[in-house]
Amino acid sequence: AAWAARVTESRPFDVAIIVLIGLNAVVLGIETYPHLGTAAPLLRIVEWVFRVLFVVEIGLRVLAYGRRPQDFFRHGWNIFDFVVIAAAFLPGLHGDSAILRIIRIARVLRLVRFSPGLRTIVTALLRSLPGVTGFLALAAVTLYVYGMAGWLIFAEHQPDDYGTLGRAVLTLFVLLSLETLPDLIEQGLALSPWTLLYYVSYVIVTVNLLLNILIAVIVNSMEE
Amino acid sequence: AAWAARVTESRPFDVAIIVLIGLNAVVLGIETYPHLGTAAPLLRIVEWVFRVLFVVEIGLRVLAYGRRPQDFFRHGWNIFDFVVIAAAFLPGLHGDSAILRIIRIARVLRLVRFSPGLRTIVTALLRSLPGVTGFLALAAVTLYVYGMAGWLIFAEHQPDDYGTLGRAVLTLFVLLSLETLPDLIEQGLALSPWTLLYYVSYVIVTVNLLLNILIAVIVNSMEE
Amino acid sequence: AAWAARVTESRPFDVAIIVLIGLNAVVLGIETYPHLGTAAPLLRIVEWVFRVLFVVEIGLRVLAYGRRPQDFFRHGWNIFDFVVIAAAFLPGLHGDSAILRIIRIARVLRLVRFSPGLRTIVTALLRSLPGVTGFLALAAVTLYVYGMAGWLIFAEHQPDDYGTLGRAVLTLFVLLSLETLPDLIEQGLALSPWTLLYYVSYVIVTVNLLLNILIAVIVNSMEE
Amino acid sequence: AAWAARVTESRPFDVAIIVLIGLNAVVLGIETYPHLGTAAPLLRIVEWVFRVLFVVEIGLRVLAYGRRPQDFFRHGWNIFDFVVIAAAFLPGLHGDSAILRIIRIARVLRLVRFSPGLRTIVTALLRSLPGVTGFLALAAVTLYVYGMAGWLIFAEHQPDDYGTLGRAVLTLFVLLSLETLPDLIEQGLALSPWTLLYYVSYVIVTVNLLLNILIAVIVNSMEE
Ligand code: NA
Ligand code: NA
Repeated sequence: AAWAARVTESRPFDVAIIVLIGLNAVVLGIETYPHLGTAAPLLRIVEWVFRVLFVVEIGLRVLAYGRRPQDFFRHGWNIFDFVVIAAAFLPGLHGDSAILRIIRIARVLRLVRFSPGLRTIVTALLRSLPGVTGFLALAAVTLYVYGMAGWLIFAEHQPDDYGTLGRAVLTLFVLLSLETLPDLIEQGLALSPWTLLYYVSYVIVTVNLLLNILIAVIVNSMEE
Repeated sequence: AAWAARVTESRPFDVAIIVLIGLNAVVLGIETYPHLGTAAPLLRIVEWVFRVLFVVEIGLRVLAYGRRPQDFFRHGWNIFDFVVIAAAFLPGLHGDSAILRIIRIARVLRLVRFSPGLRTIVTALLRSLPGVTGFLALAAVTLYVYGMAGWLIFAEHQPDDYGTLGRAVLTLFVLLSLETLPDLIEQGLALSPWTLLYYVSYVIVTVNLLLNILIAVIVNSMEE
Repeated sequence: AAWAARVTESRPFDVAIIVLIGLNAVVLGIETYPHLGTAAPLLRIVEWVFRVLFVVEIGLRVLAYGRRPQDFFRHGWNIFDFVVIAAAFLPGLHGDSAILRIIRIARVLRLVRFSPGLRTIVTALLRSLPGVTGFLALAAVTLYVYGMAGWLIFAEHQPDDYGTLGRAVLTLFVLLSLETLPDLIEQGLALSPWTLLYYVSYVIVTVNLLLNILIAVIVNSMEE
Repeated sequence: AAWAARVTESRPFDVAIIVLIGLNAVVLGIETYPHLGTAAPLLRIVEWVFRVLFVVEIGLRVLAYGRRPQDFFRHGWNIFDFVVIAAAFLPGLHGDSAILRIIRIARVLRLVRFSPGLRTIVTALLRSLPGVTGFLALAAVTLYVYGMAGWLIFAEHQPDDYGTLGRAVLTLFVLLSLETLPDLIEQGLALSPWTLLYYVSYVIVTVNLLLNILIAVIVNSMEE
């Protein structure tokens, strides 16, 4: 199985798999269009071609481990590859079931694992998270306190927006996009001009928080 | 009371209080949902458990000052803790009153005081304010001048938006979100094409100001 | 007039004028509220007090130039101060005329001249303009080309948005706020799916340009 | 043809061409206004003056190559200049045809080639693209995966937004402007509260991605 190791560790093998996953993604996209007519049986055949090729891929990569094929399952990504490709063969799954579609979409995520560029970026993104954890905690406290205050103030007059803590926090989360600011301020003014204090302070506090999360991320990635 | 000092200065004590405040926040959130039915009496008991535990916390921390318990009240946060926890026992407050709810929500803010991470961030945020004071003053002058100009130009045709200086400044504050730009420009054009000068210059000037506030904050935090 | 120079160059004099201008701004704001009733005559007296105090201010500052009072008019800001304060005494101006109101609002702008902090920021903002001139020129070319293209494509179907080059450029300027993106894309799709190319490329190109203007400003102010 | 080389390489020649292109752009803009009346024939004459002047420009620049005029066509921009100016003389094009208008608008793009400032910026913008390719690829994968997931979840209930992969990706692209967030969340909630997971995670993931593209661009341009 030395030749299998040589093949699976070669650049052309990686490129071939990336191209294969890309083509698979295109086919999945085409299938979302209705009235495919005569193309439907063709697409079913194409799907089987992909399945066979992916099984060959996994087979080669298991073979590359030589006498210890069980070592293949020691890497998280290998397990993901195996589960995602094997799952399509589960009995009881037919062509249009949601579960099968999810399994087939999950196969596209393997793109990140095979592209060194994407893998580096995903790793960097995940590594930058701890630096902003404190700010996110403070943002959570802010959302909670303004959510409770919003419930106290508006629950009766705007039950759809502030009827429960969950509703209030959702309203405040959407308000972060500033989309609903004019409407909410107008509804608040109808209740009392003092509600302006609530909204203006919320916008200033959260914009300031988001700004500082942004800065923390910038400073973090510049130090790297 | 040396043992009380040892306990209250220990890490587990802080963690326990943080967990307690977090659980208290969750309970406050649950209470915002209507139709709690049989859970209502349980929540009342839970609230009393929290009260007792918080009183024990304060008691231990006062005890830790040994023979000079009055020194406890020399720190701002200690006074806040005491007031917020003692206030719940004021006579005349019943379960659903707004004041009692505000007191209970204020207890959640103690999270910031007990979490060193949050405290550091809040301190840093407050320390970055002086660096942008000048820009904020300039923004206030800009809002005032555009507010007065907007009142002069639009007070008659758009009294809801520009009827008084207060209304005009509010309209211009909301315009910072760019949400109302298309509507306001359209209403302005119905009056005169020259109103475009007003809105376009306002957007350019304030975006420029906000941009420079952003830069001032970034430069500030990078120098630290 | 040596004493006049000592007074006008002192810090308390500056502070007094800043406070005076601030109070004047507040009074101007109060006057925008209707139904002032009995306060109206009082406000008229207050306005005259401000006028007299500002005349005293200018008089002192002219006196400070001693035997060469004409040197007072060698500085741009001094001319502005003189014009703005003298203009209120022009015959034919009565209390509610727009011109008198503009003159009185212009007096508030003197705040920037008296506050060293604001003056520094305004100077810095103006100095950062040359660094982005190239980007602004490119943005103008982009708005022009997309404006002409938009007129070619949409003039017939959306005359309100693209009927002339002016309308088209305004539509594209407002689109920078992304407010009108969903509507414009929908109207474009009703015409042809190819219009997506127009809007998607416009958004990507201009967001990229605005981003680079932002970066140019940041890099500029960091080098200072 | 040494004098032709001297002329075309001189600064005044460049400035003259830039001014000429600018005037041409203004005339093209004027032509978009209807009811030009008596000005129409004048504009036709002006167009011919521009054509003649641009032909003179190209002629001089070809002459500057002396005995090897074919070398003129060795530079991409020269070919563009020649094609754009010669195309206006193609037989069968009359004043109001769309193709002739496009040719005349293309002439305005020559501004970028003659202005050293704009050329530098365009080059810099193009050079900054490779640094963000990885992020753009990740953004494409994200749009694809969320698009497929959105089609699975919403295709039946919101066919206009998620009926096909193309529709779903367009909906998610427009959602990047946050404009449609409140509406989409509301429609999602009508289906199931779990759809919140879809939208909230999408907003957080893409805002994070866009933020990191921004940072990559900033870091890139600071290293230059
Ligand atoms: Na918006
Ligand atoms: Na928006």
